[in-house]
Amino acid sequence: MRLVFLGFGTVGQGLAELLLAGRDELARRHGLEWTVTGIADTLKGNAYDPAGIDLARALELAGRGDSLAALDRGGHGWDALGMARHAEADVLLAATYTDIRTGEPATSHVRAALGRGVHVVTTNKGPLALHYRELAALADAHGAEFLFEGTVMSGTPVLNLVRETLAGAGILEMQGILNGTTNYILTRMEDGLSYDDALAKAQALGYAEAVPDADVLGWDALAKVTILASVVFGASLEPSDSPCEGITKITAADIARAKAEGKRYKLIGRVWRDGGRVRAEVAPRLVELGQPLAGVMGATNAVAIRTDALGEVTVVGPGAGRAQTGFAMLADLLTIARRRR
Amino acid sequence: MRLVFLGFGTVGQGLAELLLAGRDELARRHGLEWTVTGIADTLKGNAYDPAGIDLARALELAGRGDSLAALDRGGHGWDALGMARHAEADVLLAATYTDIRTGEPATSHVRAALGRGVHVVTTNKGPLALHYRELAALADAHGAEFLFEGTVMSGTPVLNLVRETLAGAGILEMQGILNGTTNYILTRMEDGLSYDDALAKAQALGYAEAVPDADVLGWDALAKVTILASVVFGASLEPSDSPCEGITKITAADIARAKAEGKRYKLIGRVWRDGGRVRAEVAPRLVELGQPLAGVMGATNAVAIRTDALGEVTVVGPGAGRAQTGFAMLADLLTIARRRR
Repeated sequence: MRLVFLGFGTVGQGLAELLLAGRDELARRHGLEWTVTGIADTLKGNAYDPAGIDLARALELAGRGDSLAALDRGGHGWDALGMARHAEADVLLAATYTDIRTGEPATSHVRAALGRGVHVVTTNKGPLALHYRELAALADAHGAEFLFEGTVMSGTPVLNLVRETLAGAGILEMQGILNGTTNYILTRMEDGLSYDDALAKAQALGYAEAVPDADVLGWDALAKVTILASVVFGASLEPSDSPCEGITKITAADIARAKAEGKRYKLIGRVWRDGGRVRAEVAPRLVELGQPLAGVMGATNAVAIRTDALGEVTVVGPGAGRAQTGFAMLADLLTIARRRR
Repeated sequence: MRLVFLGFGTVGQGLAELLLAGRDELARRHGLEWTVTGIADTLKGNAYDPAGIDLARALELAGRGDSLAALDRGGHGWDALGMARHAEADVLLAATYTDIRTGEPATSHVRAALGRGVHVVTTNKGPLALHYRELAALADAHGAEFLFEGTVMSGTPVLNLVRETLAGAGILEMQGILNGTTNYILTRMEDGLSYDDALAKAQALGYAEAVPDADVLGWDALAKVTILASVVFGASLEPSDSPCEGITKITAADIARAKAEGKRYKLIGRVWRDGGRVRAEVAPRLVELGQPLAGVMGATNAVAIRTDALGEVTVVGPGAGRAQTGFAMLADLLTIARRRR
C-alpha cells in the first residue's frame, strides 16, 4: 500500500512511529504492507520518491528541524496539492493544519485524491463538517474508501463503533463531551481556578491554543456533532445550521452553585432525531453527578449513544494526543486493508 | 441464510422479534436475507421445516405456551442435538440453558455444527470459557464462523470493539463490572438494604435466579474474564485456573465504611498481562468515586480496556435483557453476512 503523508506534524509523525514500530505485526496479522511515496509539509518541506522514502530518516530530519527536501527523488517540486493530484499513491493521509470554518486547504486535497480513485484517511474536521455528502459521493463514484475515525474522538473509536459493532441498531441520539480542552478548563474551575487561570493552565500544557476560540466558543464540538449528524444520522446539516454556545460565560460562581446542587457543568454536543428531522446543538449543560458523562474529567472525551434495540451505550477515552490520533489513522488503514483483501 | 434456533426462551425470542421487525432493512442495508429451518426447545417443543418455518407463528405459539411441534414438517423428531447434527442450516443460533460449570449441553451442539461447517452464533458462556481453543480450531478447520459477542456484555459490544475497532492496539489489561446482578445488589446495599433484602429484590425483578450462586459467588464474571483471556489475550486458561471471590461476604458495615471514605465496592473481573503470562481474577474491589467504573450503577455493565497506543478506553452499557442479548446475536449475524458477501 503506497502512502502519501500530507502534513507531517504531531499527528503525521505519531502515525509514522506506529507504522515503523508495528511493521512486522501489521503485515503478519493484518496483511498491511506499506511504503511511503510522498510527504508534504509546509514547514518541514516536501519529498517525493516513487521507489519509497525512508520513513525513519524522515522522522529524524523532522525531529532535528531539517528539511525533508533532502529525501526528494522526484524532482517535481510538488507541494501538498501537487501530491494529492499526481503522486503514485493508494492512500492519501491528510493531516495538515486546516481552518475549521473554511475546511481549507484539506478539502481541496481530499477532493483531488478521491477524484482520481485514491483512498483518503483524514483527521481534518473541516472537510467532513462542511462537505461530507459531496466527498462521500465522489469517493463512491471513483471506488475509493474515505475514512476519518480520528475526526470525532481522536483514537477512541466512535464512528467505527456505530458503523460496525452497532450496525443493526437504530441510533436515536448521541451526546457527549467532544472537546477535551473545555472539559479540562471546567475540571480545573471545579478545583477553584478562575476561567482565565484555567485557560492559561490549558495553554501552558498545550491543550489550548494561543487563540483558543475554536475550543472555548464550541466550534470544535460543533464540527464534531455536525460530522455525526451527517455520517451517522444521514442528515444534511452544516455547522451554521445549529445553535452553538461555548464555555466563556460560565463563572466560578456558576460552578460553585452547581457543585452545591450535586451537579457539574459539561460542554455537551448533541445530535438527535426530532420527528422526521435531525437536530444538533452545542451548549454547556448541568449534568447530575450519577450520570456516566459527569464522571468524565480532564482532557478525556465521552459519547453516550442511545439506541432502539440496545438502550444506551457510552464510550469513554482519550480525545487527543500524538499517538492517539495517529492510532485513529492506523485503524482506518487497517479497515482499508481488510476491505480490500 | 438458513437459521436454526437452539433454545427459544427470552434470548431466542428477542432475536426472533428483531429479525421480524427489521426484515426489509436487514436485506436492503446489510444483505441479510434469512429463513428459519429449525427451532428446538426442551420446554416449547421442536419444529423442523427445510422449506421455512413461519417465525411470527412460532413466537405466537411460544407466547401462548403451545408446542412448536405444530409447525414441524420434517417428521424426524430431532431435538437440539439432532438439529445441530442434521438440519439444513447455514447458521446455528445456540441459546439453550447451559450449565456454566460443565458447558453442557451447548458445547455438544456447537461442536456438532462447527464439525460440519455450519456457522455458530452463541450466547452460551460455558463452551467459550471451557473449550474456546478446541472450538475455534474446529471452526477454522471446517471454514465456519464462530461468533459470541453476547457472552461477555450481552448487546454492549466488547469483543467486536477489541477485534475490529481497536485492531492495531496492543491490549494490556481489561477490567470491569461484568455481572449486572451483583452490581444491582451492591447498588441497593448502598441505598441501605441488607445483603439478603437486596438479593430478594434482585430475585423479584428477575435479575437473580432462585439459586443465585452463579452470580453472587462470581462464577458468571469468572466465565467472562476467562473468555476475554482466551479470545483477546490468546491465553490458555480455564475458569478454575484463576482466583474467584463473590460478594457474599460484603456486609452493610463494609459498604458504609467505604462510603465514608469516598469509595464504593464493585465486583471487578480483571485480565491482564503479567510479564509473559496472562492472569485473570474476580474479586470485590474498592473503587474511588472519581473513576469511570465507580459511576456504573444498577444492572449496567462496563469494561475499561488499557492499551499501549491509545491509553484507556471504557465501554458502558446494558449487560443483560431480552432485546439486548438478541441484539448481540443479530450483530454477529450481520458480521457473518458482511464477511461472506
